[in-house]
Amino acid sequence: MTKQELIAEIKKKKSFLCIGLDVDLNKVPKHLLETEDPIFEFNKQIIDATHHLAVAYKPNTAFYEAYGIKGWKSLEKTIQYLNKNYPEVFTIADAKRGDIGNTSTMYAKAFFEDLEFDSVTVAPYMGSDSVEPFLAFENKFTILLALTSNKGGLDFQGLKTPENTFIYQEVLKTATTWKNSEQLMFVVGATKASYFEDIRKIVPNHFLLVPGVGTQGGNLQDVCKYGLTDEIGLLINSSRGIIYADNTENFAEGAKQKAAELQKEMEEILEAKF
Amino acid sequence: MTKQELIAEIKKKKSFLCIGLDVDLNKVPKHLLETEDPIFEFNKQIIDATHHLAVAYKPNTAFYEAYGIKGWKSLEKTIQYLNKNYPEVFTIADAKRGDIGNTSTMYAKAFFEDLEFDSVTVAPYMGSDSVEPFLAFENKFTILLALTSNKGGLDFQGLKTPENTFIYQEVLKTATTWKNSEQLMFVVGATKASYFEDIRKIVPNHFLLVPGVGTQGGNLQDVCKYGLTDEIGLLINSSRGIIYADNTENFAEGAKQKAAELQKEMEEILEAKF
Repeated sequence: MTKQELIAEIKKKKSFLCIGLDVDLNKVPKHLLETEDPIFEFNKQIIDATHHLAVAYKPNTAFYEAYGIKGWKSLEKTIQYLNKNYPEVFTIADAKRGDIGNTSTMYAKAFFEDLEFDSVTVAPYMGSDSVEPFLAFENKFTILLALTSNKGGLDFQGLKTPENTFIYQEVLKTATTWKNSEQLMFVVGATKASYFEDIRKIVPNHFLLVPGVGTQGGNLQDVCKYGLTDEIGLLINSSRGIIYADNTENFAEGAKQKAAELQKEMEEILEAKF
Repeated sequence: MTKQELIAEIKKKKSFLCIGLDVDLNKVPKHLLETEDPIFEFNKQIIDATHHLAVAYKPNTAFYEAYGIKGWKSLEKTIQYLNKNYPEVFTIADAKRGDIGNTSTMYAKAFFEDLEFDSVTVAPYMGSDSVEPFLAFENKFTILLALTSNKGGLDFQGLKTPENTFIYQEVLKTATTWKNSEQLMFVVGATKASYFEDIRKIVPNHFLLVPGVGTQGGNLQDVCKYGLTDEIGLLINSSRGIIYADNTENFAEGAKQKAAELQKEMEEILEAKF
């Protein structure tokens, strides 16, 4: 998928919502556990109920790997289902990978070629040659961790340099100098919306994937105030707040309602801006 | 496995060699491609030929994920084969994972419980709550990336703080304050042996996993001069230099010879020190 296609889809659906498919078998409705592949069954119903409200889906690979080969199969079925039935949605493998050059190429092949995701999240710690192999794939996006919203996020991302900048700002600055850097997006947590103002000075045009709206306490209006660009430039992720909104047999309807609330809020924000 | 068991095994074998099982189907001997599971068959023969010379094996998960479910099965068969036939060896899932708290727990379950590895490599960028869930598993080790030997390794690891320390030193310092930090080991690349002197001031007792000896140009003698402790404290990894030493039907014998050369060198180093 190209950036322009993603933007067109956002404008069409009036939504920049990404739904995180972080499926924990301890949290899915009990009746699904009797099906052959409860994780896929859960995802399928969530996707069918919300695909008109969301522009992206983001399975976090940890939740699939935890179930071994069975989990990996559920992941494969989920991405195949998405690509076959809803090719217009943007797919994100939230894998947070990263290794030395030739090894990163293997990861890129796993997610871009074998599983056919549109994008994958990558950790920056190992530097340029751990990320550039992902960027070499045409019409695929590499979503680099910049500023994460978890408790320990600032342990290292928030360290200062002698020039009084933060490490996460150096990551943003340096990454934009890498080959094919136009294929980058960045993960930026929503816990402090004021950070977005500074971040937009460094990356005025790149898409930002923003987790932490909803469950983790971030505020959508504030994030959009500073993060939204002329080309939208934001994908707002919600996982648990949507997929576990209802734990009865009507879980997909519950997810749809939560997704619709967020989409409505996004529609209002887009209308106010454009 | 406990640290003391690992040390005992090193003393018994007079070796602190780790063999990296980074299996690329383009590089394995052609005759193996006709077998049902060439990756596992390759690993099995390498392990059988070298298990008396190495104390640890380290499959890099990227090489398995690149082949999808089939690759994941090869990984599962490899770790099961190791645990069943050579329970005395230390096993490392070189996965470089890391995510927010509950998600890191899922990764820890995947590698420690589902696959039963003794240890897993983890990336530090997301901070304390991305690593501590791994450390919560008893008798399992978390091998944190500190200083990597790849080209871009210093892009962020080598940034300075206002106190004139490097980011990788801050990672080492901070990590040792985390809960169950005695279950930590650290990845330290071998490209500049002089770094080990400074690193040992911060982590005098933790095991260091050192890639980059051999193929990537590091020197074993230099690394040991600064890195070796009274409890050994080093695992030296070689991947391609051993497993692809010979690409004929005698590949396992070729790997054995290369491993024996490194073991011999390690034996001399240990005898000179103890």
